[in-house]
Amino acid sequence: MSICWFARYPGETTKIGVSCNNILKNSFMPNRGKIGLPPGSLIFTGEKKTEDTHLKLIQYNESIYNAQRFSNAMPDIGLDPSYVTWLDVRGLHDVVLIEEVGRFFKIHPLALEDVLDTSQRPKFDEYDNGIFLIIRSLDFDESELEIETEQVGIFVGEHFAVSFQERAEDLFAPIELRLAGSSGKIRKRGSDYLAYALIDNMVDNYLVTLEKIEKQVDNLEEVIMANPESRTKGRIHELRLATLTMRKAVYPLREAINRFTDSDHKVKSEETDIFLRDLYDHTIQVMDMIETYRDMINGLYDLYLSEISFKMNNVMQVLTIISTIFIPLSFLAGVYGMNFQHMPELQYKYGYFVLWAIMITVAGGLMVFFRKKKWL
Amino acid sequence: MSICWFARYPGETTKIGVSCNNILKNSFMPNRGKIGLPPGSLIFTGEKKTEDTHLKLIQYNESIYNAQRFSNAMPDIGLDPSYVTWLDVRGLHDVVLIEEVGRFFKIHPLALEDVLDTSQRPKFDEYDNGIFLIIRSLDFDESELEIETEQVGIFVGEHFAVSFQERAEDLFAPIELRLAGSSGKIRKRGSDYLAYALIDNMVDNYLVTLEKIEKQVDNLEEVIMANPESRTKGRIHELRLATLTMRKAVYPLREAINRFTDSDHKVKSEETDIFLRDLYDHTIQVMDMIETYRDMINGLYDLYLSEISFKMNNVMQVLTIISTIFIPLSFLAGVYGMNFQHMPELQYKYGYFVLWAIMITVAGGLMVFFRKKKWL
Amino acid sequence: MSICWFARYPGETTKIGVSCNNILKNSFMPNRGKIGLPPGSLIFTGEKKTEDTHLKLIQYNESIYNAQRFSNAMPDIGLDPSYVTWLDVRGLHDVVLIEEVGRFFKIHPLALEDVLDTSQRPKFDEYDNGIFLIIRSLDFDESELEIETEQVGIFVGEHFAVSFQERAEDLFAPIELRLAGSSGKIRKRGSDYLAYALIDNMVDNYLVTLEKIEKQVDNLEEVIMANPESRTKGRIHELRLATLTMRKAVYPLREAINRFTDSDHKVKSEETDIFLRDLYDHTIQVMDMIETYRDMINGLYDLYLSEISFKMNNVMQVLTIISTIFIPLSFLAGVYGMNFQHMPELQYKYGYFVLWAIMITVAGGLMVFFRKKKWL
Amino acid sequence: MSICWFARYPGETTKIGVSCNNILKNSFMPNRGKIGLPPGSLIFTGEKKTEDTHLKLIQYNESIYNAQRFSNAMPDIGLDPSYVTWLDVRGLHDVVLIEEVGRFFKIHPLALEDVLDTSQRPKFDEYDNGIFLIIRSLDFDESELEIETEQVGIFVGEHFAVSFQERAEDLFAPIELRLAGSSGKIRKRGSDYLAYALIDNMVDNYLVTLEKIEKQVDNLEEVIMANPESRTKGRIHELRLATLTMRKAVYPLREAINRFTDSDHKVKSEETDIFLRDLYDHTIQVMDMIETYRDMINGLYDLYLSEISFKMNNVMQVLTIISTIFIPLSFLAGVYGMNFQHMPELQYKYGYFVLWAIMITVAGGLMVFFRKKKWL
Amino acid sequence: MSICWFARYPGETTKIGVSCNNILKNSFMPNRGKIGLPPGSLIFTGEKKTEDTHLKLIQYNESIYNAQRFSNAMPDIGLDPSYVTWLDVRGLHDVVLIEEVGRFFKIHPLALEDVLDTSQRPKFDEYDNGIFLIIRSLDFDESELEIETEQVGIFVGEHFAVSFQERAEDLFAPIELRLAGSSGKIRKRGSDYLAYALIDNMVDNYLVTLEKIEKQVDNLEEVIMANPESRTKGRIHELRLATLTMRKAVYPLREAINRFTDSDHKVKSEETDIFLRDLYDHTIQVMDMIETYRDMINGLYDLYLSEISFKMNNVMQVLTIISTIFIPLSFLAGVYGMNFQHMPELQYKYGYFVLWAIMITVAGGLMVFFRKKKWL
Ligand SMILES: [Mg+2]
Ligand SMILES: [Mg+2]
Ligand SMILES: [Mg+2]
Ligand SMILES: [Mg+2]
Ligand SMILES: [Mg+2]
Ligand SMILES: [Mg+2]
Ligand SMILES: [Mg+2]
Ligand SMILES: [Mg+2]
Ligand SMILES: [Mg+2]
Ligand SMILES: [Mg+2]
Ligand SMILES: [Mg+2]
Ligand SMILES: [Mg+2]
Ligand SMILES: [Mg+2]
Ligand SMILES: [Mg+2]
Ligand SMILES: [Mg+2]
Ligand SMILES: [Mg+2]
Ligand SMILES: [Mg+2]
Ligand SMILES: [Mg+2]
Ligand SMILES: [Mg+2]
Ligand SMILES: [Mg+2]
Ligand SMILES: [Mg+2]
Ligand SMILES: [Mg+2]
Ligand SMILES: [Mg+2]
Ligand SMILES: [Mg+2]
Ligand SMILES: [Mg+2]
Ligand SMILES: [Mg+2]
Ligand SMILES: [Mg+2]
Ligand SMILES: [Mg+2]
Ligand SMILES: [Mg+2]
Ligand SMILES: [Mg+2]
Ligand SMILES: [Mg+2]
Repeated sequence: MSICWFARYPGETTKIGVSCNNILKNSFMPNRGKIGLPPGSLIFTGEKKTEDTHLKLIQYNESIYNAQRFSNAMPDIGLDPSYVTWLDVRGLHDVVLIEEVGRFFKIHPLALEDVLDTSQRPKFDEYDNGIFLIIRSLDFDESELEIETEQVGIFVGEHFAVSFQERAEDLFAPIELRLAGSSGKIRKRGSDYLAYALIDNMVDNYLVTLEKIEKQVDNLEEVIMANPESRTKGRIHELRLATLTMRKAVYPLREAINRFTDSDHKVKSEETDIFLRDLYDHTIQVMDMIETYRDMINGLYDLYLSEISFKMNNVMQVLTIISTIFIPLSFLAGVYGMNFQHMPELQYKYGYFVLWAIMITVAGGLMVFFRKKKWL
Repeated sequence: MSICWFARYPGETTKIGVSCNNILKNSFMPNRGKIGLPPGSLIFTGEKKTEDTHLKLIQYNESIYNAQRFSNAMPDIGLDPSYVTWLDVRGLHDVVLIEEVGRFFKIHPLALEDVLDTSQRPKFDEYDNGIFLIIRSLDFDESELEIETEQVGIFVGEHFAVSFQERAEDLFAPIELRLAGSSGKIRKRGSDYLAYALIDNMVDNYLVTLEKIEKQVDNLEEVIMANPESRTKGRIHELRLATLTMRKAVYPLREAINRFTDSDHKVKSEETDIFLRDLYDHTIQVMDMIETYRDMINGLYDLYLSEISFKMNNVMQVLTIISTIFIPLSFLAGVYGMNFQHMPELQYKYGYFVLWAIMITVAGGLMVFFRKKKWL
Repeated sequence: MSICWFARYPGETTKIGVSCNNILKNSFMPNRGKIGLPPGSLIFTGEKKTEDTHLKLIQYNESIYNAQRFSNAMPDIGLDPSYVTWLDVRGLHDVVLIEEVGRFFKIHPLALEDVLDTSQRPKFDEYDNGIFLIIRSLDFDESELEIETEQVGIFVGEHFAVSFQERAEDLFAPIELRLAGSSGKIRKRGSDYLAYALIDNMVDNYLVTLEKIEKQVDNLEEVIMANPESRTKGRIHELRLATLTMRKAVYPLREAINRFTDSDHKVKSEETDIFLRDLYDHTIQVMDMIETYRDMINGLYDLYLSEISFKMNNVMQVLTIISTIFIPLSFLAGVYGMNFQHMPELQYKYGYFVLWAIMITVAGGLMVFFRKKKWL
Repeated sequence: MSICWFARYPGETTKIGVSCNNILKNSFMPNRGKIGLPPGSLIFTGEKKTEDTHLKLIQYNESIYNAQRFSNAMPDIGLDPSYVTWLDVRGLHDVVLIEEVGRFFKIHPLALEDVLDTSQRPKFDEYDNGIFLIIRSLDFDESELEIETEQVGIFVGEHFAVSFQERAEDLFAPIELRLAGSSGKIRKRGSDYLAYALIDNMVDNYLVTLEKIEKQVDNLEEVIMANPESRTKGRIHELRLATLTMRKAVYPLREAINRFTDSDHKVKSEETDIFLRDLYDHTIQVMDMIETYRDMINGLYDLYLSEISFKMNNVMQVLTIISTIFIPLSFLAGVYGMNFQHMPELQYKYGYFVLWAIMITVAGGLMVFFRKKKWL
Repeated sequence: MSICWFARYPGETTKIGVSCNNILKNSFMPNRGKIGLPPGSLIFTGEKKTEDTHLKLIQYNESIYNAQRFSNAMPDIGLDPSYVTWLDVRGLHDVVLIEEVGRFFKIHPLALEDVLDTSQRPKFDEYDNGIFLIIRSLDFDESELEIETEQVGIFVGEHFAVSFQERAEDLFAPIELRLAGSSGKIRKRGSDYLAYALIDNMVDNYLVTLEKIEKQVDNLEEVIMANPESRTKGRIHELRLATLTMRKAVYPLREAINRFTDSDHKVKSEETDIFLRDLYDHTIQVMDMIETYRDMINGLYDLYLSEISFKMNNVMQVLTIISTIFIPLSFLAGVYGMNFQHMPELQYKYGYFVLWAIMITVAGGLMVFFRKKKWL
């Protein structure tokens, strides 16, 4: 069951932290939490995946690196233009806390609303004091053949970046590692480069996801070529849905990165452009591969159908050959099994042998006929 | 039967309120009411869904809130730039009344014509004294698997908005609730924000409709995987039509909202833009989901076809195995059931047992053959 | 057989009125009349549908209305900027007469050539002294399931409009009626508004045509759901072709109306723009519906195929059940119908009853097996 | 076998006229003559279709008309701005001669290379001293159901035009005829109008080709509706390929004509524009028809498949009815053909007649069942 | 197994040459080498195809031509604006060497990263000191029906060009040949023309690859028309994948060449434009052919399916004819093989002959019925 919290934002009215079921009941809304609510209403629409809300605070510049962890409470943050502040929030169900984070960093209510509505498409928005990005992580569950997707929201201000996600697992570990390392480009650059690095990290992960899909596609091809089983058609279907899901997450991302690159917002330095273009390249490449897998899976479906048709044709040929040969012979045997008193052939001494000769001739003739039809 | 009224508009000639059948007869028109009529001719082309015409008048500003209801008659309205006037008209069949509303708010005859022609696509038009929007409500009938759609027309002037629809149910209840609440952004803003709120409310409802469709799609997937029934193919067909209908209503809406956002008409304040962009986002998201469901339903169709093919293949294999094993054996039995006087095998003491041995060998050999072919 | 006349136009050389067969022979043209001929060559390429050529001359302004009919001869027309002159020409096979009309109104030879080549796509062309439009009327023959299409050419000068078509039926009757009526917008406006009214009238007729198609589509859906017949697949095919034909006529019309709206030619007043935009809306709506019917018909084809597959699957199951149960039993009966002298079971007193018991057991077991496979 | 000549162009080095096999061998090229060769290398890549190279020289202005024919040698041509010079070259295998022509008219090596590489797509190129067009002639072989296509290259200078093609047949006869005629627009106009006339002539021919295809499509529709034969599926396939080939030739032509119309090269006079637009119209119309035939052929494929499915369903029903009725009856007959010593029914006096009654009842019941299932 | 080296670039940190497995382990990366690494990290992601790294150094101008070969070490290169320096690197697994090359020519780390990541799509990038291109070579393995593709990276500076690829085979032999030749355009031109010549050479090779595919498509068409075999469906599938792979390599190349042509980077002279446009033409032509083959292969799939359906229909007809004729006759024979004591027909003298007459009549009647149904 989806846990659901509600809070009106300062620009609107009072904050409340009650179960949203009540609100829904009061507002006469069918079953989706937000119909008729004012824009900027904060409601977490996703599935609660972690018990606590973890906040990781990393502050760095070329010479400083400082990392801290907090749980379930907004830490006391000092913002200073001389270093970059990155707050990584894991766990979105505590709406009041999220709202506190939003208030501290002056994140626009509409952006905060999008952070909590975890079924957003990737996008890039500009606000006065920063830029806001939605990206989706993608993982492929190889046993269920299903894509698991998680929404990540990143708000980038002039000397800070805030990333939001529900899952507690460490999606951004490699970035932390690079930050912790004493040198490297990333420590010399601003919050926009950090945002780039976070997205790049997620797009790199897409390639791993695609490799898992490719493995399944190759495997499926082999199975279909050898002997399609009952599960095969279901697997084709699942893989199709998986590429569909990936496509939905990656297509809008291309547009978002494009708009990021073209943006002349004050938080984005021009030096980041060349990296964003590289990132754009990778996104295009991911899209290309998704399209290729889609085409391949459609090809597999056609292959499956023709395999089944071909096999059925073979089965029918066997049945037809056997029936066509033996049904007439059985008829003849039936005829001479009749009990009429006057059946001259039965008295004929060699009747039985003549009949065998006839039957063998008929069978042989039919086999020649089938061989000519290429059925044998 | 569709009720049909006719009224020439002031710019044109006299008003009349007779059944349109007569007019149609006089004008030699085949069977659709409006062929050859001058533009701006007011004819209600929809289905009458409510007996009376209800008008709800709401006037508000940051401090005032006043709501009144009227039936079948145009109320005496005072328009004042210090507050926003919203007239919500439910019931379109009383063309004379609609015309009166139009005349009071100076709604252009072409806009009024579109209000009454209830099969319009969503659109955004600009007139000198206001903007005009067509949106369609969408609901999904889960038993019939059919989309129910209703046209809503909204005319927005500088200090007023008029909404038109045929159905009497309270589509806009959540908005009234927010207006009635003493505070909140909506009371501080103008008629353009009200229009935004009305459309946003309808687009939020689309998500509920989509969830109903998703439930059916998931359900169908399970049925096909388990055991496709006779109704299955019809259900796939109905769901396809449903997504088709939704698509027809949502695609042009995106364009309309886009033009609303870009418009520099005097009734639209710039502060509404950020909300319209959020609304645009949601529309794109709805379109995305519709496309996804379409792809999923097409996938289900392919799955259904392959399921049927696979099943038929299995049926054929069973038939072929049984026939191929027993038809030759029956032939042999038939041979030794013949009544020839000279059949040496019949006299042979162990003939019967030898034959059984032969028959079991043949059957066993065929079964080995089928196992090798992976039919067993 | 297509009647075919030929006339070189003044800008070119002499006029001739002989059968085009001769010309074709002289020019070594394969079988389509116009290969290698200079542009502007006047040849009627359509089918002769009326015996005579009828010309209807209507002249009007706000106070005057005057209508006259002529046959097979160009009337003596006075053109006067104080009123609008509309010449409606029905019958295109008399090329010399058409040429005379063209010369009087100074219609460019390329436009006149397009009038007579009745397989043109809808389009909008600008000439120095006027604008030229091609539109196609569309009707649906409900017994043949075929679209009947007729080309209409309209040339609009500053105070006149000339419409050309081959059929004598009164496509434009509603417009005449409105002109004849003493009041109404149309009499106050110019030739461009008249052209708008003529096209609007034709587009309104498209909706009637679409309704006829929709009726057939609905009907077909019912038939397929109930019991597909031999004719069904042919009907799907015919309906597909019908939407194809409509599409070919409507898609380019959208573009033509768009160019009409954007045109700044002197014959077009700006006041007509709002009506052209309304007309454009309707054309888009027609296109929308055509696309919807196409999708529906494709859906019906899929439904038909799955219906046939499902039915065949059922047929096969019945066959397989019967065969699988009785073929082994018949084999057993065959075995005990053999005439071997030594068959111990035959002497056994209860042999016959034991065999019945075995046979009933086998049959019952198979039925349980089929029920488990959901074939029964 | 393709004849293949090679000549380096003046801008490059020496001319040679040896078989290109040697060159290919020296250059280590697999099997396509031009890999790694410098651009502008002249190699005829087509099939030699005529023994000699024929050159037809026509020079004309409003008062002069002069035509001459030459074989296998470049004639002595005087170029004079007071008249238009048209050299029509038929036969491209004599690369040295082609090169001479190119040098005389100062045709750019890249253009000349395209003339000889006869698998080019239609295109329009501008060079300093002229414009260059590639068009493809299209004919439909009604017995093979295949498109025959020939490449035509046209280079247009200020007072001259050169057309190149391999086939000796008189594709341009109608244009010569019009030029030879003492009057007509064409003699008054320049080389650009001549180029227009040549292309228009070829596009007019496309309509004849399309008519031949339409005839086959109609014919195929009838065959499928009546009784699909073994050849039918192959014919559908061939027609599909034919439309594919036409499409490949016509789509880029549209673009080429468009660029011709928009060009402001000195060889193109503005007066030609209106004719080019007319030509563009016709090309669009041809494309439209090709798309329509493609859709129709796809429709025929679907019709064919459903016809086969429907027929197979009928065949299966017949088989199932017969089998289902007689297999149980045969079983009963088999039972009473057994030779058990104790079978009470056999002694019963009316046993035989009772059995007949039972069998007729069973058969009748099954027929009622089949009639209810609509199989009979 | 893919060999994998790693080196941080000067702009980043230290160089290391250890197996990348360790790095991957340290970085917690799943299985693709580059997740979370900083941009510009040099890792060879391809398959090692050659043991050593070969470097071919060619330096030329109109009068000078000098070629040298080196292995596994960066040669001592003198760069001089008076001649063009071309370094052709074959073998990418020695990342340290590649990095040295990159440092000498000042190739941007992001470009060098793309050189080593051998699964890039074709593209064109501009850097301050040069332009960078990725192209893919394509070959078709006719026994496996698979495309073999190799990535080639070309970095073009003002007086030099560096080409990178993994394979040691001599893809660029024809270009060397032309350079070695004492004359010819190529020696007079700059590094941009060299880059053009290299790409042109690769695109020319695409045509050879396409011819191999065409041969397979034609061959497949014949097989399907004659008698589809078990392998046929797999071959259709493989060919589809092959065109898919080609498409992925050629589509982005078109865009890359376009951007090359439009570029105003200092390394590109305007004189190269006309050749790039010719190259663009060829790329379009290759794309056209790929699309055509795709359509043809899809056509073959349809043909295959209809062939199988048609054949199955024939098989079913044979089975049905035989069964329908003999099953009733066998029933009759079975009836008169029963052992009832009272069966009057058996005593009737001509019973046996009458039965034969009945059976022949029934069989004849059924054959007439089948002939009428066109099954015979
Ligand atoms: Mg809302
Ligand atoms: Mg969610
Ligand atoms: Mg990356
Ligand atoms: Mg699943
Ligand atoms: Mg890169
Ligand atoms: Mg299909
Ligand atoms: Mg109208
Ligand atoms: Mg309606
Ligand atoms: Mg909303
Ligand atoms: Mg699922
Ligand atoms: Mg329904
Ligand atoms: Mg319905
Ligand atoms: Mg939002
Ligand atoms: Mg012509
Ligand atoms: Mg016609
Ligand atoms: Mg209209
Ligand atoms: Mg028809
Ligand atoms: Mg309207
Ligand atoms: Mg070349
Ligand atoms: Mg060729
Ligand atoms: Mg023409
Ligand atoms: Mg027809
Ligand atoms: Mg052929
Ligand atoms: Mg024309
Ligand atoms: Mg990275
Ligand atoms: Mg690779
Ligand atoms: Mg393979
Ligand atoms: Mg080339
Ligand atoms: Mg062929
Ligand atoms: Mg493979
Ligand atoms: Mg070329």
